[in-house]
Amino acid sequence: MSVSEQEFTNELKRKREVINQALPGALSPVQHQRLKDAMSHYPLAGGKRLRPILAMIMADGISQSGERTIPFGCALELVHNFTLVHDDIMDNDDLRRGIQTVHKAYDIPTAIIAGDALFSLAFEVISTTKTNDGTLRKIIGDTARTVRVIAEGQQMDMEFENRKDVSEAEYLEMIGKKTAVFFSLATKGGALIANGTEIQVEKAEEYGYSLGMGFQIKDDILGVLGDEKTTGKPVGSDIRNGKKTLIAVKALENLKGAEKNSFLEIFGKQDAGEKEIEDAKRLLEKCGAIEYAQKKAEEFSSTAKKALAVLKESKDKKLLEEFADFVTYRNL
Amino acid sequence: MSVSEQEFTNELKRKREVINQALPGALSPVQHQRLKDAMSHYPLAGGKRLRPILAMIMADGISQSGERTIPFGCALELVHNFTLVHDDIMDNDDLRRGIQTVHKAYDIPTAIIAGDALFSLAFEVISTTKTNDGTLRKIIGDTARTVRVIAEGQQMDMEFENRKDVSEAEYLEMIGKKTAVFFSLATKGGALIANGTEIQVEKAEEYGYSLGMGFQIKDDILGVLGDEKTTGKPVGSDIRNGKKTLIAVKALENLKGAEKNSFLEIFGKQDAGEKEIEDAKRLLEKCGAIEYAQKKAEEFSSTAKKALAVLKESKDKKLLEEFADFVTYRNL
Repeated sequence: MSVSEQEFTNELKRKREVINQALPGALSPVQHQRLKDAMSHYPLAGGKRLRPILAMIMADGISQSGERTIPFGCALELVHNFTLVHDDIMDNDDLRRGIQTVHKAYDIPTAIIAGDALFSLAFEVISTTKTNDGTLRKIIGDTARTVRVIAEGQQMDMEFENRKDVSEAEYLEMIGKKTAVFFSLATKGGALIANGTEIQVEKAEEYGYSLGMGFQIKDDILGVLGDEKTTGKPVGSDIRNGKKTLIAVKALENLKGAEKNSFLEIFGKQDAGEKEIEDAKRLLEKCGAIEYAQKKAEEFSSTAKKALAVLKESKDKKLLEEFADFVTYRNL
Repeated sequence: MSVSEQEFTNELKRKREVINQALPGALSPVQHQRLKDAMSHYPLAGGKRLRPILAMIMADGISQSGERTIPFGCALELVHNFTLVHDDIMDNDDLRRGIQTVHKAYDIPTAIIAGDALFSLAFEVISTTKTNDGTLRKIIGDTARTVRVIAEGQQMDMEFENRKDVSEAEYLEMIGKKTAVFFSLATKGGALIANGTEIQVEKAEEYGYSLGMGFQIKDDILGVLGDEKTTGKPVGSDIRNGKKTLIAVKALENLKGAEKNSFLEIFGKQDAGEKEIEDAKRLLEKCGAIEYAQKKAEEFSSTAKKALAVLKESKDKKLLEEFADFVTYRNL
């Protein structure tokens, strides 16, 4: 049994559609029209829906119960979008994937409230999950803890911007908190809803965590090498912002002498021109920092796949394996 | 059986102390020190703790199980403080009850994250409540729905600031969403944790709702007549901000001719002087708007007490009756 890239892409599309269909219903309890519009601004504008899809496949892989994860999956999207709304206020960004950010399209107070309301709505939706009440208690505790840890990761990330000496270990701890725990919540939640065994739940969590680590490192690579049109991210912004990604951490370690000085002149320079960004990219490639990051992402992807040993062979298991590879070879 | 004002005050103090003791433990899972400090800034600076105290007395009144409500009560305080942190950003306030607001003492991004993290921590804490899992599912759903409705109420409140024609019905709907549902969550949650009968849970919710309505109307009265030193609220700010309280709604209805014009000249005038504020207060009293609001608050308090008929006679029931009166006769 194996899945082709085409089958994998089709499965993702099919499951994404399921979540897209369910999301308007998840938002329906909100009565205040303007607040509802602000809350719907991102969630109904599309997205990859990676977290709910992962929860669904995991639950299918364990007991063909992917359908039962839909409310939980919607809640993951609501939480994800709530963090985006608040992040955009904090970063003072005007655009997200080509559309106006919520605080620009509405106003800052409305965006703060819309984020808060998306977050509470997520728990409302989770509380309707068709699972036994004991499992629900676990999922609620896990979800709440995860969002709190994400907040801690965001705080670390912000503070790294004002530091020169971030180590690889610190970077990995930060993305573990900011990104990987969220993927592990998705896969662990899927396993819990599917009534997985204790070891299956544990390994599902490990799988999601490693996959999330690979995902974030690849995200940072795409922030340097990616095509703005496909990724939706302004290329060079991480360099201009002096963002302490794994690539930057490694480059600051590898570069010496004149090359290091050249890089440091551009790194963190808000008004760096296109030529300077090109120069910085060349230095990042030349010193091996990008290759190092790509390798690291692939290691995490490989660790993720190993955690799947507790699942019986199935098409869903293959999809999960493919998913772990996908996050490191994707270009968007 | 009856409770004296002294006994009531002592009981409140004793229960407030229980919550004050428990709160640092509720905040202990947070690892990031600066974020933890920002999160603790309000909750550990004191407060009336009215919501947890209400949950505790209600649970005692039903089955002497007030102690089991402590985690839920801490969660109510975390949610309450999370809304304060975000409110203060939206209102751009520098001070809250004599201490710096979180976004002033730290910065706006940290305050946004601290609010989000307080909110998630609330659900973490609730998920540890010693109650059966089915009850927990209800409490989670109720809490999440309540916060979402509070967000809708805040949004209404903000929009009223830019409107001239708010009706009494609209005002009552707004404070129902912004304030009363939160008190009803406290008392309903207390009844659920105490394994109250269906009718007890329903009436506990009604009690908290009516009490919350009375509380908010009285709050608005204190905003006009109160002593800044005891209430911690700058007197006259509601008048300067043109806040559509019940008093203002009623005054705009009752005042005529020259008096109405005088009031309208001061109402919403950000730089109104002390003499102008005194003039506006005199007009509010003279036209009967304050008396009307006080009467309305007392009506809600009386409705609240009626809902207590489903509880057997006990000291706790007396405390709840006293509590309903307290919210309308308090001066802080």
